Amino acid sequence: MEGVTLLSSRVSHFSLRVKIALLLKGIEHDDLPQDLRNKGQLLLESNPIHKKVPVLIHNGKPIVESVIIVQYIDEVWRGESPLLPPDASLRAEYRFWTDFIDKKLLDCLMRFMRGDAKNEEFIENCELLEGAFTKLGNEEEGPFFGGARMSFLDVMLAPYAVWIPGIVGVMGLKPASQEQCPRLHNFFQSVLAHPAAKLALPTVEALKEFLVARSAVYRGK
Amino acid sequence: MEGVTLLSSRVSHFSLRVKIALLLKGIEHDDLPQDLRNKGQLLLESNPIHKKVPVLIHNGKPIVESVIIVQYIDEVWRGESPLLPPDASLRAEYRFWTDFIDKKLLDCLMRFMRGDAKNEEFIENCELLEGAFTKLGNEEEGPFFGGARMSFLDVMLAPYAVWIPGIVGVMGLKPASQEQCPRLHNFFQSVLAHPAAKLALPTVEALKEFLVARSAVYRGK
Repeated sequence: MEGVTLLSSRVSHFSLRVKIALLLKGIEHDDLPQDLRNKGQLLLESNPIHKKVPVLIHNGKPIVESVIIVQYIDEVWRGESPLLPPDASLRAEYRFWTDFIDKKLLDCLMRFMRGDAKNEEFIENCELLEGAFTKLGNEEEGPFFGGARMSFLDVMLAPYAVWIPGIVGVMGLKPASQEQCPRLHNFFQSVLAHPAAKLALPTVEALKEFLVARSAVYRGK
Repeated sequence: MEGVTLLSSRVSHFSLRVKIALLLKGIEHDDLPQDLRNKGQLLLESNPIHKKVPVLIHNGKPIVESVIIVQYIDEVWRGESPLLPPDASLRAEYRFWTDFIDKKLLDCLMRFMRGDAKNEEFIENCELLEGAFTKLGNEEEGPFFGGARMSFLDVMLAPYAVWIPGIVGVMGLKPASQEQCPRLHNFFQSVLAHPAAKLALPTVEALKEFLVARSAVYRGK
């Protein structure tokens, strides 16, 4: 199989990262949306251990796990807009906060949806991310960690621009206020207005519909 | 603070990865072993979010999380023995299997120690790693994923050369046989004989003592 194919699902925050990265880099690709309740042969063969989306198939070779795929994309299509910065210590910071998003922010949101995490824990995580913006971002250059353009870390966080309002709308999560987290707030607004992210992300309304349909599953876990 | 300082604990598998990487690269550094039951100010300040070892402090800047630290070391001290290979798709494979070690192998061992995982699950994970050796390693070149010398992925897996025999000895884990996993078996033997790994790793006896002392804690969780 020649070229680039993305096996994804419409709302998966992990899939959305990869879709945004492909669009940011302007990489031509085919989309193969997957039915996760009835997994197809190609998905099972491409990711036999985890059996999950996203999978990027590049010239017949499957790459799996969103963080690994986005790094791969950045290494293969380095081009004029690298996602990871050249400075090793800043790369380490970007990787640290990516890990934070996956281990703390996501984990806390998943537990909240199951009725198993306090709203304060989510606010604390947002405040830590606000601190990351203050430490790593340059407000004068733009709203993203990468300044005026989206970097690796921006891609990692971007799907939450629709996921958080979705969980707010459907499950009653109270978001951090603009006063508590001005940079994070500005980041999410800028993601929703960004051409590549706008094209990749589902609308908040679509995400809410998904969450309403799934809420029984989340609550039942 | 000039130079390189490693905040670690004597048996932590995450710390051991960093120690091995520093020795492989021949990087001069100071060791600051940490008392994890009574965490010091430097650890709390260097890793305020997770408050865990290992932390590498390089010219005053703390880097945390073993996988991120070893990538940082490889990027800053690229030198003559790079740990990550130049090929992007092989790098993605190395990152995938690192993630597998942390999410599947380690998770299964921790649950086994708490009496919460079946021995078969551990054997299955070993067989998957055996498959990774067959797919990625070149047996004629040497016992490691990197052939004759340890690569990034070898560093990630190396601490299990003492951890697995430790859990076998203290908690009655039944290891995969040499017939089931010849390459994995050969890998662990070669790690134990490797100059840098030998210097970094505790002996199996020391690890057993640690596990005996900690087994009540593991079982009580």
